[in-house]
Amino acid sequence: MIQPAGRAPAGLELLMIPSPFLLYLGDSQDELSVKTSRGVAVWRPQACVGEFRGPKCNQTLGLPPLSFEEAKAQGAKTVIIGVANAGGIMGPGIVADVVAALRAGLNVASGLHDRLRNHSEIVEAAAAGGLELFDVREPPADIPVGNGRPRAGMRLLTVGTDCSVGKMYTTLALEKEMQARGLKADFRATGQTGIFIAQSGVPIDAVIADFISGAAEQISPARHDGGWDLLEGQGSLFHPSYAGVSLGLLHGAQADALVICHQPGRESMRGLPGRALPDLKTCLEANLAAARLTSPDVIAVGVALNTSGMTPEAAQRACAEASDLLGLPAQDPVSMGVHLIVDRLIECFEPSKLAANTGR
Amino acid sequence: MIQPAGRAPAGLELLMIPSPFLLYLGDSQDELSVKTSRGVAVWRPQACVGEFRGPKCNQTLGLPPLSFEEAKAQGAKTVIIGVANAGGIMGPGIVADVVAALRAGLNVASGLHDRLRNHSEIVEAAAAGGLELFDVREPPADIPVGNGRPRAGMRLLTVGTDCSVGKMYTTLALEKEMQARGLKADFRATGQTGIFIAQSGVPIDAVIADFISGAAEQISPARHDGGWDLLEGQGSLFHPSYAGVSLGLLHGAQADALVICHQPGRESMRGLPGRALPDLKTCLEANLAAARLTSPDVIAVGVALNTSGMTPEAAQRACAEASDLLGLPAQDPVSMGVHLIVDRLIECFEPSKLAANTGR
Repeated sequence: MIQPAGRAPAGLELLMIPSPFLLYLGDSQDELSVKTSRGVAVWRPQACVGEFRGPKCNQTLGLPPLSFEEAKAQGAKTVIIGVANAGGIMGPGIVADVVAALRAGLNVASGLHDRLRNHSEIVEAAAAGGLELFDVREPPADIPVGNGRPRAGMRLLTVGTDCSVGKMYTTLALEKEMQARGLKADFRATGQTGIFIAQSGVPIDAVIADFISGAAEQISPARHDGGWDLLEGQGSLFHPSYAGVSLGLLHGAQADALVICHQPGRESMRGLPGRALPDLKTCLEANLAAARLTSPDVIAVGVALNTSGMTPEAAQRACAEASDLLGLPAQDPVSMGVHLIVDRLIECFEPSKLAANTGR
Repeated sequence: MIQPAGRAPAGLELLMIPSPFLLYLGDSQDELSVKTSRGVAVWRPQACVGEFRGPKCNQTLGLPPLSFEEAKAQGAKTVIIGVANAGGIMGPGIVADVVAALRAGLNVASGLHDRLRNHSEIVEAAAAGGLELFDVREPPADIPVGNGRPRAGMRLLTVGTDCSVGKMYTTLALEKEMQARGLKADFRATGQTGIFIAQSGVPIDAVIADFISGAAEQISPARHDGGWDLLEGQGSLFHPSYAGVSLGLLHGAQADALVICHQPGRESMRGLPGRALPDLKTCLEANLAAARLTSPDVIAVGVALNTSGMTPEAAQRACAEASDLLGLPAQDPVSMGVHLIVDRLIECFEPSKLAANTGR
């Protein structure tokens, strides 16, 4: 088994989902629906043998298309149900595919709200094959109520103007860049894709409402080794469906630094046609104001723009505009990296390390 | 059985917990721990035969202290576990008492996060006695994701500087005053006490985090009869443990009017010694700003102060100060009523009805 990408914080266990993986796309017909599978493909490529596409699927991750039997023959150990839909329902089509995957000898891991274990035919097929089921959206049972008390350690949280604007990608890119510079930095997963990648974390949108900030405190406990916890943000303070999750996470994270994520040109909020995104400045100010409740000195250190679909010139222009507007470095983590944002982070919090890296 | 106080909104069922009730105080040693029992005693007095106090309890509701057997002999049908603690745990002492109540022939209703059904000895004792268990903090299974789309009807939400500052009491007082003036107005419960009183509602702090605003939309669906839904607020945007609940409720409520609730002189946030409350103006402005996401024209119509423990003069002074500060009517709903707040509501939304009530 390939080693998981992450290290679990004290008190949270690694999941140890057997790899390699087959990534299930089902009948997904839009880019955002396959973001869980895409995230795993991008961040754990060595663990992925192929993708499973249903007859109506018009999405691809560029991996070999495989049936469950072909994947098993090529060594796959687990199929990851890496599709997302509003409400997280596991429809009859997905249930039938899961049963077929189990009959082909694959373990199954799912990030949907609707649990694998809720479906008796799935449970029976797993038992019959001696296979494991992983519901990564099942939160731990022992989450405490948040307390907001100051705790040791440095923490960064990504926030966004909307869902699915690149918060997880940005957080992982920051981890990679910081680690490359010799800084201690650990990605802390709060969503199903991040948990598949890190093999630890808490699916914060699946905890009981009273415990949201407590869950954020649990995944980023007091830290005394001088390192950073980089918390994956969720939702948006301006998303009418999910803002409660975002606010609880913001309070529980007790972040020293925020990075705001945005997709320029997106016409409406995820899942809410006709509802415009907030402007970047309003959104950042609202996040900083709310974050001060538990972290009075919080600052923003960068803007991460998802410029996919834009020309390189338009992307550069968008970054320059955002940078001018907010007085922060702005980059597309995919096409430009996050080195300017990490520079700013170091400048603000660890100036001695910046000096040591000037030869970069 | 005495009729429940509330009417369920379309789509939510009445709970029909058999009354009369025995109110369980356990070993509570502070006022806030017994607020569920107190709420039921105040708002459904005709349904309460007595209170059960443990050996260490120093609280009373002024009801006759009864053992389970005595309560049963006096006609009680259900014991309400009306205690609250951080995390909502049912400790061994409470479990033992619940079993004793069942053995005495009483049904049991609980508002704790920890479910009666989670304890096998409770389930067995209920089955043995042919008695019912009610976990009112078990949310309905079919809560949708919130969508923030404008919906018909008028809605008012109470918000607060902290937990336990009188939001439920204020909302019920507004319902009573509005109904007395011939307005259609219905209390919509979002917490265990309110649900015990109304016999319907959704325990919004117990829903899965992704569905908070959806739950608020569900309990106050589109309404076409010209009446008001009065939603009981929860927590505070400034409470680091629970603000996510408050924000999701605020967005889902899509309120036309807010009433802000506060306890002058409270030294620290509920459950968080040393953490000061936000000032009233900052808190109201933050609530209005966040509420505008789904209700752009939302306004505040009043301030409800909990002045218990203050002299009448000090209470009047506190109301005058709050009124001057915010330009809103300010009253203590317990000692002064809420008529000035309802006057303001009518003035802002139903001026023709104000004219019809000038003889009041």
